[in-house]
Amino acid sequence: MKESPIGVFDSGIGGLTVLKEIMNVLPNENIVYFGDTARVPYGSRSAETVTKYAFQSINFLLEKGVKAIVIACNTATARSLSIVQQKYDIPIVGVIKAGVRTAMELTSSGVVGVIGTEGTVGSRAYELEMKSISSRVQVKGKACPLFVPIVEEGWHDTDVAEIIAHRYLDELREDGIDSLVLGCTHYPLLTDTIQRVVGEAVKIVNPAKETAMDLMDTLQKHKLLNERGAQPSYEYYVSDNPEKFSQVGEKFLNRAIDGIKLVEIQKY
Amino acid sequence: MKESPIGVFDSGIGGLTVLKEIMNVLPNENIVYFGDTARVPYGSRSAETVTKYAFQSINFLLEKGVKAIVIACNTATARSLSIVQQKYDIPIVGVIKAGVRTAMELTSSGVVGVIGTEGTVGSRAYELEMKSISSRVQVKGKACPLFVPIVEEGWHDTDVAEIIAHRYLDELREDGIDSLVLGCTHYPLLTDTIQRVVGEAVKIVNPAKETAMDLMDTLQKHKLLNERGAQPSYEYYVSDNPEKFSQVGEKFLNRAIDGIKLVEIQKY
Repeated sequence: MKESPIGVFDSGIGGLTVLKEIMNVLPNENIVYFGDTARVPYGSRSAETVTKYAFQSINFLLEKGVKAIVIACNTATARSLSIVQQKYDIPIVGVIKAGVRTAMELTSSGVVGVIGTEGTVGSRAYELEMKSISSRVQVKGKACPLFVPIVEEGWHDTDVAEIIAHRYLDELREDGIDSLVLGCTHYPLLTDTIQRVVGEAVKIVNPAKETAMDLMDTLQKHKLLNERGAQPSYEYYVSDNPEKFSQVGEKFLNRAIDGIKLVEIQKY
Repeated sequence: MKESPIGVFDSGIGGLTVLKEIMNVLPNENIVYFGDTARVPYGSRSAETVTKYAFQSINFLLEKGVKAIVIACNTATARSLSIVQQKYDIPIVGVIKAGVRTAMELTSSGVVGVIGTEGTVGSRAYELEMKSISSRVQVKGKACPLFVPIVEEGWHDTDVAEIIAHRYLDELREDGIDSLVLGCTHYPLLTDTIQRVVGEAVKIVNPAKETAMDLMDTLQKHKLLNERGAQPSYEYYVSDNPEKFSQVGEKFLNRAIDGIKLVEIQKY
């Protein structure tokens, strides 16, 4: 069981920013990654649809024999984490708690910004989690639907990205936020642009690293850490367009992605 | 049979720009519209996936008793029209031939631009169709993946839209195009911005109106025109998020959209 892989899934390639941190923090672990590229993006879809997609991704990963699962997608975490945790026996870790904890530690003003997809911001999942830690925190959420396509187009370091970031983020700056959670796994690639737009005084929180730490804690608690020092195996599955996943994904993961396999996810 | 509805489908809301023209040109016709909002966008998906989705949309519309079908989506037309026309007995009209014909009539330089999704431009469907009319035409294709999210965000008349349009279209202008096909049903909302960017000398072709004319000819040829002057009925189905379809769709259609129903399209 300890040598079984960890299952990681996302709506597409964004989850690779989380995968990268998991690979760093847990270098012994075997991993199976699934990107639902046939149905990306999740951000504008209804809660019911995203929850159905999460169930299918988990069923697929269970068939691959995973010992634990990471939902490396903010929208899927916001919409489905508590539901799927009740349904399955193995540990399931989302990306939201990690970002919440870090942002709450970093804020002095008590005014925290959260940016993400329409689904994530609309669900108010970050806000509810933060308020459960401190009822005095003020959470300013802002959906930024153009950030994902900007990153996928490879334009995250351009003037276009900066103008769009101003449109979305100027109001958060005026609201007096002093920390800002990147509540979508695509957004870490926009960190430099976002930092310029919100100013150096605002601390930017990328939940990916903290999520990897959460996963380590969870595996430890369940005595599931892989202690064998062998070269880990990484397997990649997508529901459409493996070529594009490989091309764009390498930017996210900073390493080559080979042998990507197609899966008919709607069968699960 | 003549009073049966026309079936129109698209990956989401873009097809409403085509629907609007059909309503104008054929005011007696009953219409069933299906928008595949659970799986939008089609533009970045593989040919196999888009073709499978087209079959499902057509099977659903046939169950609604339609007498003819319009594929109001350039990507789905490019990827699947010839395949589905072989498979089904009823007339099926796409959006590409209409745009090709108009652009070929309008060009003097013989250099024609075509903009659309990655799927449409990558398929070279417009180019092959144009070359079959005149082998001397030069076709300059350009995928513009950010145009769809810009329109869905309601930013089609902003400085952001104009900067993005310059990034995509300046090279077409330098290539000497004198007509430009809007090869994606979202793009008509960007007409003013695109016209400013490419200059007044370039004629912009919106295939929607010509597609409605093609449909009229086809119905006439098959003796399927509805000659009863009663108030037509319009039905709308989507695979996800009817509320959002209604909100955003009204901008496309310039009329209220009521009674939208959900359909589980993967069952078809």
